[in-house]
Amino acid sequence: MKKTDSGFEAINLGHGSGGVMTRDLLDQVIFRILGNELLDKKHDGSVVQFEGPMAVSTDSFVVSPIFFKGGNIGELAVHGTVNDVAMCGAVPKYLSLAFIVEEGLDMKEFVEIVESVKRAADKSGVQIITGDTKVVERGKGDKIFINTTGFGEVHPRANIAVKNIREGDKILVNGPIAQHGMAIMSEREGLEFESAIVSDSTNLNDLVLKLLDEFGDKIHFLRDPTRGGLASVLSEIAVDAKVGIEIFEEQLPLEKQVAAACEMLGLDPLYVANEGLFAVFVDPEIEQEVLELMRHESSGQLATRVGEVTSTHRGKVVLHSEIGGKRIVTPLIGEQLPRIC
Amino acid sequence: MKKTDSGFEAINLGHGSGGVMTRDLLDQVIFRILGNELLDKKHDGSVVQFEGPMAVSTDSFVVSPIFFKGGNIGELAVHGTVNDVAMCGAVPKYLSLAFIVEEGLDMKEFVEIVESVKRAADKSGVQIITGDTKVVERGKGDKIFINTTGFGEVHPRANIAVKNIREGDKILVNGPIAQHGMAIMSEREGLEFESAIVSDSTNLNDLVLKLLDEFGDKIHFLRDPTRGGLASVLSEIAVDAKVGIEIFEEQLPLEKQVAAACEMLGLDPLYVANEGLFAVFVDPEIEQEVLELMRHESSGQLATRVGEVTSTHRGKVVLHSEIGGKRIVTPLIGEQLPRIC
Repeated sequence: MKKTDSGFEAINLGHGSGGVMTRDLLDQVIFRILGNELLDKKHDGSVVQFEGPMAVSTDSFVVSPIFFKGGNIGELAVHGTVNDVAMCGAVPKYLSLAFIVEEGLDMKEFVEIVESVKRAADKSGVQIITGDTKVVERGKGDKIFINTTGFGEVHPRANIAVKNIREGDKILVNGPIAQHGMAIMSEREGLEFESAIVSDSTNLNDLVLKLLDEFGDKIHFLRDPTRGGLASVLSEIAVDAKVGIEIFEEQLPLEKQVAAACEMLGLDPLYVANEGLFAVFVDPEIEQEVLELMRHESSGQLATRVGEVTSTHRGKVVLHSEIGGKRIVTPLIGEQLPRIC
Repeated sequence: MKKTDSGFEAINLGHGSGGVMTRDLLDQVIFRILGNELLDKKHDGSVVQFEGPMAVSTDSFVVSPIFFKGGNIGELAVHGTVNDVAMCGAVPKYLSLAFIVEEGLDMKEFVEIVESVKRAADKSGVQIITGDTKVVERGKGDKIFINTTGFGEVHPRANIAVKNIREGDKILVNGPIAQHGMAIMSEREGLEFESAIVSDSTNLNDLVLKLLDEFGDKIHFLRDPTRGGLASVLSEIAVDAKVGIEIFEEQLPLEKQVAAACEMLGLDPLYVANEGLFAVFVDPEIEQEVLELMRHESSGQLATRVGEVTSTHRGKVVLHSEIGGKRIVTPLIGEQLPRIC
């Protein structure tokens, strides 16, 4: 196996000591790949200018396996937090980045993850401004966990709040559901399909920015249904906004292979995690314009309406099935797919 | 064992699902204990107002054991990041808080940790504004890891930068060294002393604020020597600032019991982690005033000078030993005490 510049084939406890080995790892991997004016100061923190309302979100990523079709834990950690900041109606600007590495992680894998972080951050237009690296003993972690905390400027025309959701709002999504969860599950279960199921992991901030630029406060609410899937997130929103939500099975965008994989594993795609999907609640008068805008963007080509907000059955989500039935969609109770993000 | 309100004696994978169990854990433990106007919105992120230069720092905490004399991982996670923000010359305002819990963690311990987070945040004057909870399978983590990311306003009179360190600067510390590391090691090794060695874990932002209010840019540099201890941090600073640093063994504040424990375990206290200690580089003309101010504060009662900056032996730290010798203090190479913070 080729050694990295640092001369180590694997991360060991010394890399988390705070001493020379930590510094070498930072210099030879992290600063080399991610280096920018702020990180290069090598202080324990960074100073940036910030004016106005700031959206902040944090997430720890524990996905397993750490490499999967369509991505890896590094880019997922960037996309996940960038998207959470965007869902606040904000333009993500900066990220912090903290690793908890299990002793023995292949240095090449670590380098590849840091490189993915860099690419995803560049694509999302955010800067990594401060970080941390800890190492735990073999068997006390699982390869690598990553925390990112992101902050961004709230868009001047945005007014995203659960209280703005009202009867008649249309609920649109930017693409097919359940891609990420089923990509991970296929890896874990070793399922083979005609073509691989690929995670939808991507940054959504570009598309959200265009929506806010164009439609301002007619965008009432944004949310990316990650863990728990679309069903859990819509159920939460129905409770928090004290509205009813109706969704239509025939409108739910679902790739054939993903549907097949779900069926094979006995999973309901409504509860499966997404990483590049968001639901947007809009004023009904702009529905068509929003869909048109979304469909012109790479992350929204398959945008479609999935449901609407009603004043009946408040606090509940009702699914209209393809065969004409109706059922209440409950949120996920326990665990369906652990460590999906 | 008494069940908690949530009805579960231990954290399980369902608590990390993003579904109903996650929501219950949030409502019954996290929001109940930490709840504030921002967290109560239960969005994936929070929006706060911010104006001007902002200091940001992130740290993941993996200390083992998670409870130790003088603290636990919860308060450590608050103090550590609050202090890193303060070391940038800033007043910490907000924290994010992300848990990675190993399946099986006793719910009472989790509650106790969250309560400690709350107390430490209140004492430090910071608000927890957003968070995340993930659960990993038994054997894929180690009870609990915590990431905090902190944000603070840079003090208007602060100018903390390694380039401001100059020849003649005095290096002061606020108290005895090696307390935290030896408190953890005593727990791990089951050492018994006449009285227990207690971690120095505390928030330093109050004291730093007083120093900046009083002395402004005559405070040239601040740094808290956590992992790697005072030796590693001063060595890094000597390199980064391109100055020489001299420290005097007889001036190093070290409690008798800590010295005894270090000797017993063959550890050099200069390399042992601290969690409530900081080194401040000051203009020599204010040395006495700074020491006096520090000694009036609870976290600085044993403040003392430990060294000074010279123009000789640039990039190196030289220790003057009690018996009149001199030796170069090298930074820690590998790992001395894994998972000390």
